[in-house]
Amino acid sequence: MTIKRTQPNTPGRTRRVEHGEVVYCVMTADDKSDTMKGQTEQALAQIDEHLAAAGTDKSRILTTTVYISDMDKKDEMDEAWLAWVDPQNPPARACLGVTLHGTTQVEFVLSAAK
Amino acid sequence: MTIKRTQPNTPGRTRRVEHGEVVYCVMTADDKSDTMKGQTEQALAQIDEHLAAAGTDKSRILTTTVYISDMDKKDEMDEAWLAWVDPQNPPARACLGVTLHGTTQVEFVLSAAK
Amino acid sequence: MTIKRTQPNTPGRTRRVEHGEVVYCVMTADDKSDTMKGQTEQALAQIDEHLAAAGTDKSRILTTTVYISDMDKKDEMDEAWLAWVDPQNPPARACLGVTLHGTTQVEFVLSAAK
Repeated sequence: MTIKRTQPNTPGRTRRVEHGEVVYCVMTADDKSDTMKGQTEQALAQIDEHLAAAGTDKSRILTTTVYISDMDKKDEMDEAWLAWVDPQNPPARACLGVTLHGTTQVEFVLSAAK
Repeated sequence: MTIKRTQPNTPGRTRRVEHGEVVYCVMTADDKSDTMKGQTEQALAQIDEHLAAAGTDKSRILTTTVYISDMDKKDEMDEAWLAWVDPQNPPARACLGVTLHGTTQVEFVLSAAK
Repeated sequence: MTIKRTQPNTPGRTRRVEHGEVVYCVMTADDKSDTMKGQTEQALAQIDEHLAAAGTDKSRILTTTVYISDMDKKDEMDEAWLAWVDPQNPPARACLGVTLHGTTQVEFVLSAAK
């Protein structure tokens, strides 16, 4: 089964990998001076582009792990998430508070069906 | 390939998603006033139900990530885990200490083969 | 679809699970007195062995989650990672700071295509 990868923007890792019927995506915001809500919106907009490039969309997301730097700001992230996610087709999602690099406030790891 | 989702209990996310030969499940305890061991037992009992509904069982779990709110209570979680898991067919498992929402002490993210 | 598991080294969990076209692997260093860089090198060397045993190699890794105990030592981990990963075929990777068990400094969770 063929593997398709996006060009790495950072050495040693990439944003999107496709394999068989599944696409995997890891995403943070580009502008990390933004708020939790703003970083979430930025990341989700980029995820839309990656899913489209893989021939799918957010209605076919299977799993999502949301890593946030501050559990007290989960509501901010959720506000942007709920405005974005397909309410009829939500993924199996977990949201965890962890230490992220630098000023990153939110990082998404997801898989979607093509 | 068809995607099958459980009805979301919380807007924007769901407990179980099936795709092809794999089922994905995210689970916490319902009663979050329970101890680490109790919350683990509750969550695992619900996972059993979800796996059964997907036509599979715990002997076919592939991967498990266990997120716990307090690494000092890992032994409590492990006691319940070891009483539950199929000893002949354990998954590739990682256990991480993170910040969970509210009084949640443990959250399971797993994939299983049908 | 058949599931193939390595013999568990610790009760209730295993290092490698194969299912269909995908292999899942969870790895830490054996010698946990080692530095972040050393533990990373140890874990990656073991991952090489597991991928080979599954008939694949690091050029076919799909996703990697790197859990580290101290985000201030991410550069140490990355130095070992960049010396190891196939630069033409990097995975979708996330790196999170979490609490790990005991003196474990780094834990890898990855999936690879066969």
